[in-house]
Amino acid sequence: MNQYKTLREEAYEANMEIPKQHLAMYTWGNVSAFDVERGVFAIKPSGVKYDKLTPDSMVVVDLDGKTVDSQLKPSSDTKTHLVLYRSFTGIRGVTHTHSTYATAWAQARASVPVFGTTHADFGDRPIPCTDYISAEALSRDYELETGNLIVETFKKDNLNPSQINMVLVAGHGPFTWGKDAADSVYHAAVLEEVCRMALLTLFIDPLAKPLPEHILRKHWDRKHGARAYYGQ
Amino acid sequence: MNQYKTLREEAYEANMEIPKQHLAMYTWGNVSAFDVERGVFAIKPSGVKYDKLTPDSMVVVDLDGKTVDSQLKPSSDTKTHLVLYRSFTGIRGVTHTHSTYATAWAQARASVPVFGTTHADFGDRPIPCTDYISAEALSRDYELETGNLIVETFKKDNLNPSQINMVLVAGHGPFTWGKDAADSVYHAAVLEEVCRMALLTLFIDPLAKPLPEHILRKHWDRKHGARAYYGQ
Amino acid sequence: MNQYKTLREEAYEANMEIPKQHLAMYTWGNVSAFDVERGVFAIKPSGVKYDKLTPDSMVVVDLDGKTVDSQLKPSSDTKTHLVLYRSFTGIRGVTHTHSTYATAWAQARASVPVFGTTHADFGDRPIPCTDYISAEALSRDYELETGNLIVETFKKDNLNPSQINMVLVAGHGPFTWGKDAADSVYHAAVLEEVCRMALLTLFIDPLAKPLPEHILRKHWDRKHGARAYYGQ
Amino acid sequence: MNQYKTLREEAYEANMEIPKQHLAMYTWGNVSAFDVERGVFAIKPSGVKYDKLTPDSMVVVDLDGKTVDSQLKPSSDTKTHLVLYRSFTGIRGVTHTHSTYATAWAQARASVPVFGTTHADFGDRPIPCTDYISAEALSRDYELETGNLIVETFKKDNLNPSQINMVLVAGHGPFTWGKDAADSVYHAAVLEEVCRMALLTLFIDPLAKPLPEHILRKHWDRKHGARAYYGQ
Repeated sequence: MNQYKTLREEAYEANMEIPKQHLAMYTWGNVSAFDVERGVFAIKPSGVKYDKLTPDSMVVVDLDGKTVDSQLKPSSDTKTHLVLYRSFTGIRGVTHTHSTYATAWAQARASVPVFGTTHADFGDRPIPCTDYISAEALSRDYELETGNLIVETFKKDNLNPSQINMVLVAGHGPFTWGKDAADSVYHAAVLEEVCRMALLTLFIDPLAKPLPEHILRKHWDRKHGARAYYGQ
Repeated sequence: MNQYKTLREEAYEANMEIPKQHLAMYTWGNVSAFDVERGVFAIKPSGVKYDKLTPDSMVVVDLDGKTVDSQLKPSSDTKTHLVLYRSFTGIRGVTHTHSTYATAWAQARASVPVFGTTHADFGDRPIPCTDYISAEALSRDYELETGNLIVETFKKDNLNPSQINMVLVAGHGPFTWGKDAADSVYHAAVLEEVCRMALLTLFIDPLAKPLPEHILRKHWDRKHGARAYYGQ
Repeated sequence: MNQYKTLREEAYEANMEIPKQHLAMYTWGNVSAFDVERGVFAIKPSGVKYDKLTPDSMVVVDLDGKTVDSQLKPSSDTKTHLVLYRSFTGIRGVTHTHSTYATAWAQARASVPVFGTTHADFGDRPIPCTDYISAEALSRDYELETGNLIVETFKKDNLNPSQINMVLVAGHGPFTWGKDAADSVYHAAVLEEVCRMALLTLFIDPLAKPLPEHILRKHWDRKHGARAYYGQ
Repeated sequence: MNQYKTLREEAYEANMEIPKQHLAMYTWGNVSAFDVERGVFAIKPSGVKYDKLTPDSMVVVDLDGKTVDSQLKPSSDTKTHLVLYRSFTGIRGVTHTHSTYATAWAQARASVPVFGTTHADFGDRPIPCTDYISAEALSRDYELETGNLIVETFKKDNLNPSQINMVLVAGHGPFTWGKDAADSVYHAAVLEEVCRMALLTLFIDPLAKPLPEHILRKHWDRKHGARAYYGQ
């Protein structure tokens, strides 16, 4: 069990951010941490409350979905995480929540327009929303195909998962990722706030226009561009 | 008094979840725990603040509404609980709250459409809303007839109280139930969140469509079906 | 100073409920406690933050608005409280807040319809909203005339301040009262929640109908009528 | 380092109000404290989380934007603060947040009407919203020109920064200022609440009218006029 100690601790700490940031109730939501060298990730066990979690309870799974080292069953969303690790090179953490505003946008099956710099600081275009998963794909392997649906949405819209690290799955809710598990939860919290601000913006002006390209580009670049100057 | 110790403790713990989950203010709301073998349930005393509650203050009542063992008066909603225990076989806990979003839907007299998987995880169809209680029924026995109104709504719409464990009473608020008292409060918290998400979904898209049947069915089944695989 | 010790403590405790119930920010809002025998009331000092308040800092004022016993200046809203004590027989506590939803209704100059039993438990008709104070009355004595405006609104609409213990002052915010200071803050918290539920109800159904008279009457009566049976 | 000890402490304390008042998440937002005699201000370091801040980590910068005394990089918004200190005589604190409702109004590019006395207590006219920053100005020096945009908006609309101490930058968010750093954060919290109340007011009545001039004038004057009588 000890060989995955660090990975489990990373996953545990990141999972505990979900209740702390109010991103899901009870047992809902899950975060995983990926060890790219060993090709395994640690993920929340299925249906266990956050206050019962420990680093040891994190389930270590390989990229075929096989549990490598645990007595517990992994999150029912495990195969969605797995597809993202396989397909989106460079990501090392994935988060799924049921956060209120992001889920509302997913339920309305609407991508979230870039209304302001809060959004542009984290993505240079609308947050995409997938189509509903098809009955056919669902009947094959629901969670795996949810992952495929996300990947296909990114391909179809020519999106770069390093630049857009969040997605809404239609009728379901958000998935986010990042350079480690903590980063993926961070993006989940940002997404929730961006979704809330966007909804309120539309309330004040139902015809609100997206941020002009030059401001959008500037905010993205000052945080993520070649000459980024945000942070230490 | 000691013969109902465990039942009282169960009811007490579940009642204390109401303020903890922000499901009602002050003295509002009430939870009961049912002992099916002895045909009695323990319920919150009427008009007592949550921070004054103790396990001993829970009132034990039989299915005729007679107080079996207590100096305090039971919740004014006691007879509604009683009808549900009599009519909905298998339930062992009932919760009534004034949670904000669920009450707003009840005040708008609208059943809550299934817009997403958060809802589908807990019920495979809209959350029903009763009609207003009639003047005639109300004058007979308000709280008892509120229970009958719920039961009739389920009969009329051919609903299974094991599959839909929540209802909105028109102009009043939510009642939920479950396999024990804690489970019934859990459903009250879920209902509040589902109601909030549904309202926000309608804000983003007033013409939002319900979740397609195949996704709804899948989410219900993976948690509650014969081959459920959620949880440990 | 000690002769008003109990009155000051009552006012202090009630004022401290304002931040605890999130009814106002910083120094905003004020509660007073009335000693009907001595014809004086204790009220929050003007512009002092809640975390700096002590029982001793409460200002004791008579019904002419004269400070009886204090080094501090009383709340700028003192004369509004005074008019209510003079005019509404039987009340012994008054609260003024800037709670968010009640203030929004006051700013929209709309009385709050009775959409549900949560409202009916505390008042058997809409929560009244005054007109704007006139320029003429304002120039005479703003705070005193705000009190008169409330009293006139109750007279004009034939309202009983024992049955409706809350009002919205147009463009300003809520005033509530009760049988003591704590009761008046309790009503301020109830009002905020009722205003929030009413707004959300209108969101779900902009044409939502008020609660039928027989349900409204029943809820009022079971809590406040001659044969009330709520509470111990 | 010790020569700026007091200034750093003032800036630190004010920055810590941002998470406490829920005005921004994670590293977002920044407050500065200005020492007018020495022509320097202390500001939050860029991209550092609030729970990692200390008084020593505050960055001291002069009015040309040169770091005077620090190993850390100042907030990326430093030059916006600098322009405000140069242009708005008498201010000694500036705050920038991403608070939810204020940002929504900024994203909708709408100035906030004076709907009630909560607003009038802090400003005698609508809270202005700038235009979008032009591509040309942005390419010159984004943060400096954001400051200029604010100053020009005040000039164009003939606004007095001592009377209106808050502004919305279109598509971005709020900046506020005050007589010291703490006062500027106080105004940021007030702005957020005023923006929230205004949005809710428009929800209840989309045609809500602004507060009549005589009430607006009175509230401003009783707090800020020559014969102000609010506070001790």
